[in-house]
Amino acid sequence: MSILIKNILLNDQIQDVYIEDNHFKTIGPNLDVAALELIDGSNMAILPSFINAHTHAAMTLLRGYADDLDLHTWLQDHIWPFESQLTFDDIYIGAKLACLEMIKTGTTFFCDMYWHLPATLKAVSEMGIRAALSSVFIDFNDPKKAKDFRARTRKFFREKQGHERVIFTLGPHAIYTVSRDSLTWLKDFADENELLIHIHVSETRKEVHDCLKMHGIRPVKYLESIGFLGPKVIACHTVWVNEEEMDILASRGVKVVHNPVSNMKLGSGSFPFKEMSQRGICLGLGTDGCSSNNNLDMLEEMKIAALQAKLNHHDPTLFTADQALECATLGGARIFGLDMGKIAVGMLADCILINLNHYSLLPRHDLISNLVYSATSESIDTTICNGQILMRNRKVPGEENIVEEVKIWENKLKKRP
Amino acid sequence: MSILIKNILLNDQIQDVYIEDNHFKTIGPNLDVAALELIDGSNMAILPSFINAHTHAAMTLLRGYADDLDLHTWLQDHIWPFESQLTFDDIYIGAKLACLEMIKTGTTFFCDMYWHLPATLKAVSEMGIRAALSSVFIDFNDPKKAKDFRARTRKFFREKQGHERVIFTLGPHAIYTVSRDSLTWLKDFADENELLIHIHVSETRKEVHDCLKMHGIRPVKYLESIGFLGPKVIACHTVWVNEEEMDILASRGVKVVHNPVSNMKLGSGSFPFKEMSQRGICLGLGTDGCSSNNNLDMLEEMKIAALQAKLNHHDPTLFTADQALECATLGGARIFGLDMGKIAVGMLADCILINLNHYSLLPRHDLISNLVYSATSESIDTTICNGQILMRNRKVPGEENIVEEVKIWENKLKKRP
Repeated sequence: MSILIKNILLNDQIQDVYIEDNHFKTIGPNLDVAALELIDGSNMAILPSFINAHTHAAMTLLRGYADDLDLHTWLQDHIWPFESQLTFDDIYIGAKLACLEMIKTGTTFFCDMYWHLPATLKAVSEMGIRAALSSVFIDFNDPKKAKDFRARTRKFFREKQGHERVIFTLGPHAIYTVSRDSLTWLKDFADENELLIHIHVSETRKEVHDCLKMHGIRPVKYLESIGFLGPKVIACHTVWVNEEEMDILASRGVKVVHNPVSNMKLGSGSFPFKEMSQRGICLGLGTDGCSSNNNLDMLEEMKIAALQAKLNHHDPTLFTADQALECATLGGARIFGLDMGKIAVGMLADCILINLNHYSLLPRHDLISNLVYSATSESIDTTICNGQILMRNRKVPGEENIVEEVKIWENKLKKRP
Repeated sequence: MSILIKNILLNDQIQDVYIEDNHFKTIGPNLDVAALELIDGSNMAILPSFINAHTHAAMTLLRGYADDLDLHTWLQDHIWPFESQLTFDDIYIGAKLACLEMIKTGTTFFCDMYWHLPATLKAVSEMGIRAALSSVFIDFNDPKKAKDFRARTRKFFREKQGHERVIFTLGPHAIYTVSRDSLTWLKDFADENELLIHIHVSETRKEVHDCLKMHGIRPVKYLESIGFLGPKVIACHTVWVNEEEMDILASRGVKVVHNPVSNMKLGSGSFPFKEMSQRGICLGLGTDGCSSNNNLDMLEEMKIAALQAKLNHHDPTLFTADQALECATLGGARIFGLDMGKIAVGMLADCILINLNHYSLLPRHDLISNLVYSATSESIDTTICNGQILMRNRKVPGEENIVEEVKIWENKLKKRP
């Protein structure tokens, strides 16, 4: 596969961009190369596609299900009972809808933690995007459950090797749902096999209070005390951390993912962006699952991330548009060790082409400001992942079929007991 | 003009909706009427269009201009010098772009405060939407300026009568930019002529501090002390108000407009939604101008309004999706005395038709949750205002011309000294 994009705006200049296989091969004015696909980039800009660093993709199925409830009622009475019924087929459909939404909103990589990992893997394979996939690991301190989940972890690890666009990661849910023994087992398993570990950390005040009650220390200190923390750990949410805990995260090279919409919608709290970035902690941005967002739109996530930080400190200079874009692209790429997040020769050919004539991008005093604070996903014309065109002129091949499958699933759901 | 919309989802039922002239004439299943326009509403839902209760429309021209700066630098060094250069023609173009954006995002009424009112009026007339228009009144305690602004107010009032879709309102900017004398003059003028008054109130902590320093009382008490408050007053932002001030606003029947994105982006603060709604204060929702938002998308504004309230009180049950939609529709209609905000016989025919097959609205456990928390404006297929179709299949007649005009304006701007 090869693609030549002619006359496109890149870093304030009109350039041609040539993609060969899955990489940016050449960038410059008036390139004279032959390509299988030719894209006229006039009135468009090329930008890195987004990295959704924490989500539960198939929870698209729960979009708008049981909103505006208190956390306990929401989880215990609605989300968990619903999830316990989900089959491989359900999750495959939900993950395909998620991939469709991500392609439509310019995301080409997502980091997932959910049930029926092979179903999500199947959807990712077919839809052409990238993912870091982990199966949820929850043992509730039950040794029998722990044994089952460890066996499952080893099984998925063996089976999921060697997929070009998928990274297998570990997914201990949180310190309050996974035993200390399993956390250290997972850490050892990750070290042996050079795997990333994806975990919810200090999302709510309750988590901190419960940890203090049970272990006498706060969550990050607890994870530190059991030797869990390190540069392969991805801590998500991470709202309720104090200065000492942020120092620990920084010194251990832990990666942190900010989920602003979910943290607001569930009433969890404000992310300490200023304090994290002052320490040089590598930050990604994620939407969390659709049940607490309720979409997977990284444009919206960037804007709300910046708005939340500005509100939190009553300081409009905090979390600039450039920083928001960095979190959503390069920051995520650093977390997952990907050659993504920049349009440059040798990088993976993951990008979006945006329509500069879209009303939400006019006038253009500052393209990045427009993208972060004003753009709507309709302005994303083309999404390219791994050198393949996944969307062009806002059309994703097969999208009507996915919509129909979701509607058939909905009708079946209504008939379930 | 007459429109028959067949088989559309309305309040959980499939209905036909018949529009005659500018009103909903008949609603029911299988209507047998002839209409000039027939719309197949299959796979669509009909909902009230949005009311943007506080904006500065032509500030689309400043979208992305000088973001992420502290308020003082932003206003003094960037926004005000830029605005002082704007001509009638500039504002006409900016207001047309704003109208285009509003139609594309499902808004059919906006309340504006800006310079060159006749230019905005011209744009509104041509674009087919509704507006409450006020000219900015700023005298900076200067009697000469006060005299000029009063003359201008009388002139606009005389000229702007009798436009079907436009309400003329008064626009004193704020207590720190308008003299006490002019505020009382405007209040008297409003009373005599039954006009609404649109004013920024307690947007920032600085405004409160300065008011305490100058008058010894807080802004709402100051406005109460000069006899300014009443049911025709629309107080915008209204972030820094204490319990006593909210009691005054409630007892005077003052209408309040919440501008969540702007209040976050400028680092102003959190709106006291819980405290306001407990008092039964009539609340609208507005985007503010594009320079502090940076778009006019009421879908986004509803979501962020709800998120902000939930975060503010760490309570996910606050500001539900239904409440957000009410603020953006019925709440605004109550403020401006409009028969809008509901799809019902006899109401003005202002509505949107949304595409239920759009990925952002699937699955559909709850349509309103989906609309508020997940939908992107691309899901709005059709916008109707005053019985006229302004957008269908996401196309607005003449939009390419507006885009070209904005780009010509941009190029001219670059050449200005």
